[in-house]
Amino acid sequence: MTVFVLVHGSWHDGDHWGAVVERLQELGHTAYAPTVAGHGKDVPKDVSHDDCVASIVDYVVERELADVVLLGHSFGGTVIARVAEEIPERLRRLIFWNAFVPRPGKSMFEDLPPHYQEMFSTLAAASADNTVTLPFSIWREAFIQDSDLELAQRTYESLSSEPLQPLMDRMDFSRFAGLEIAKSYLNGTEDTALPPGEWGWHPRMSGRLGLHRLVQMPGSHEVMFSNPRGLAEKIVEAGRD
Amino acid sequence: MTVFVLVHGSWHDGDHWGAVVERLQELGHTAYAPTVAGHGKDVPKDVSHDDCVASIVDYVVERELADVVLLGHSFGGTVIARVAEEIPERLRRLIFWNAFVPRPGKSMFEDLPPHYQEMFSTLAAASADNTVTLPFSIWREAFIQDSDLELAQRTYESLSSEPLQPLMDRMDFSRFAGLEIAKSYLNGTEDTALPPGEWGWHPRMSGRLGLHRLVQMPGSHEVMFSNPRGLAEKIVEAGRD
Amino acid sequence: MTVFVLVHGSWHDGDHWGAVVERLQELGHTAYAPTVAGHGKDVPKDVSHDDCVASIVDYVVERELADVVLLGHSFGGTVIARVAEEIPERLRRLIFWNAFVPRPGKSMFEDLPPHYQEMFSTLAAASADNTVTLPFSIWREAFIQDSDLELAQRTYESLSSEPLQPLMDRMDFSRFAGLEIAKSYLNGTEDTALPPGEWGWHPRMSGRLGLHRLVQMPGSHEVMFSNPRGLAEKIVEAGRD
Repeated sequence: MTVFVLVHGSWHDGDHWGAVVERLQELGHTAYAPTVAGHGKDVPKDVSHDDCVASIVDYVVERELADVVLLGHSFGGTVIARVAEEIPERLRRLIFWNAFVPRPGKSMFEDLPPHYQEMFSTLAAASADNTVTLPFSIWREAFIQDSDLELAQRTYESLSSEPLQPLMDRMDFSRFAGLEIAKSYLNGTEDTALPPGEWGWHPRMSGRLGLHRLVQMPGSHEVMFSNPRGLAEKIVEAGRD
Repeated sequence: MTVFVLVHGSWHDGDHWGAVVERLQELGHTAYAPTVAGHGKDVPKDVSHDDCVASIVDYVVERELADVVLLGHSFGGTVIARVAEEIPERLRRLIFWNAFVPRPGKSMFEDLPPHYQEMFSTLAAASADNTVTLPFSIWREAFIQDSDLELAQRTYESLSSEPLQPLMDRMDFSRFAGLEIAKSYLNGTEDTALPPGEWGWHPRMSGRLGLHRLVQMPGSHEVMFSNPRGLAEKIVEAGRD
Repeated sequence: MTVFVLVHGSWHDGDHWGAVVERLQELGHTAYAPTVAGHGKDVPKDVSHDDCVASIVDYVVERELADVVLLGHSFGGTVIARVAEEIPERLRRLIFWNAFVPRPGKSMFEDLPPHYQEMFSTLAAASADNTVTLPFSIWREAFIQDSDLELAQRTYESLSSEPLQPLMDRMDFSRFAGLEIAKSYLNGTEDTALPPGEWGWHPRMSGRLGLHRLVQMPGSHEVMFSNPRGLAEKIVEAGRD
């Protein structure tokens, strides 16, 4: 069976994968869900993209994990691409789940549509610690529109503010394109966290991967909450040989 | 529970929502399905877009409806956008179901692909009353391709000719963009009444809404006939808080 | 009930439709699955596009088939378009299942994205008989990603090398656009044999058909193997009047 390491995106932490990990284990797999540096509540927020990457590299190396299927969600895509550059020998496959696929020399911020760039900059400037707190209306309508209001509210309370710096850091990413690790893109057909079309996830981000396996499922950016069992099953499909 | 007002599109009338209204009521909601001015059989066809809008405004005001979730289908999108400008205080949310989202100063006609513009103009010019009768082959192949032939034929008989003037009227629509009413876009993934791609519904029309909730379902432009219960359930998902 | 003739694509032969034919027969239809000239194992590979077309025309004429719903998959789309030019009186409807829709004076090769053009040219030049053998990694990741590895391997063994010449032949196709035969496009929503977006199947190919019926289903380019019963049911939906 497969060893999965699940890397969350902005505003999330590792605990949010709970029901997904449970289903993966029911299916006979092993799954780890670390929290990326600077993410979660009550932690220092002054981190760089390198710090984010190092926290996942260390997690995998300390546990001596091998043959890992490494999944990144959303912002987590930029993290797993760099992790793959650092410890390719430990990885069996990368899964980008509605994730950013980085371009050499570019930041994740540069892949955001203009209205998000402006909003993120404004919110971070107004914060005490250069972080972005996601407005509830965006969470409800564009991130988790496939849940009822109660779940949308409860999960919103569990989010934490996102440090802007890792999104702004321009990384090299020059080794990523040359890696021979298999790659999958998992796309939620109603994921509007990035607006569909010119600025959308698919095929804009998936198309950067070159040869890859496309897997799709119904649902929003947050099926980890609204349909965690379905997500786990699609992760298995995306992650198998 | 929710009060829905359902506004049909071209060639349709309010009676076509019968099975959808029934399912909404089974689910505990209230649903109204008025017929837009100039639509249906045996009615005068010399109406303007303003007349269409007034007929729905009057319907809502006369019944003293409040907290309404107002849905527009197809051409009905241009109607509900104007209704929202007139009586925003009565509306809780707008749902555009494969509907036109109007642009300031533009007509719906200007959002049609060239081959439809030419066909509509030709058919209206050849009619006695400046109306367009939809050819059966287009109805069968591009509007209701997910039904069997018998249902396609039976529903075709129930259609009425569409007055061209409301489609041609250039409306102001300058207040619509500033309204703070929540908005949803409901998209049928096989809706080819507008041809997919450059001239398609989604994300071309949905993208004009700004922040909105996207809900998708399988099916054609006419799931009100081919899958009314499934449509009703998606309307609830699109319409909840 | 309906008489179907199913025309396979590159690397395939008629035997690959076995489970699809079986399901169509269960549903009360008649289905034929000829092998296109130059396709399959242990046959001469020096064929032209005209030879491919003639082999299907002869198959239909010799059996005196009439009122045929003629389906082409992938490369087979260019074959059925030419067959329709030759024997339109025998055809009731054309179904393009993730198939190339030809343009007058162009070859199928010219509709391939540059990376496939380069790969096909290189592989054919390195072969003894100007044929292309599909690499397993592409088969596994981009053609049949919705199966398990065992099925992917077993079906790969059944493929045969594809003669390059029929893909390179520029055909006239000037009569195709004027044919009054009904047309359907059947699209697999996870079909990545052509990369989604600029070079994708839908709406790029479907959009060339003019008025047509769109039917979609989940799955890869190879649901004839991974979901043959589901494919058969969608073929019926695409092929009915």
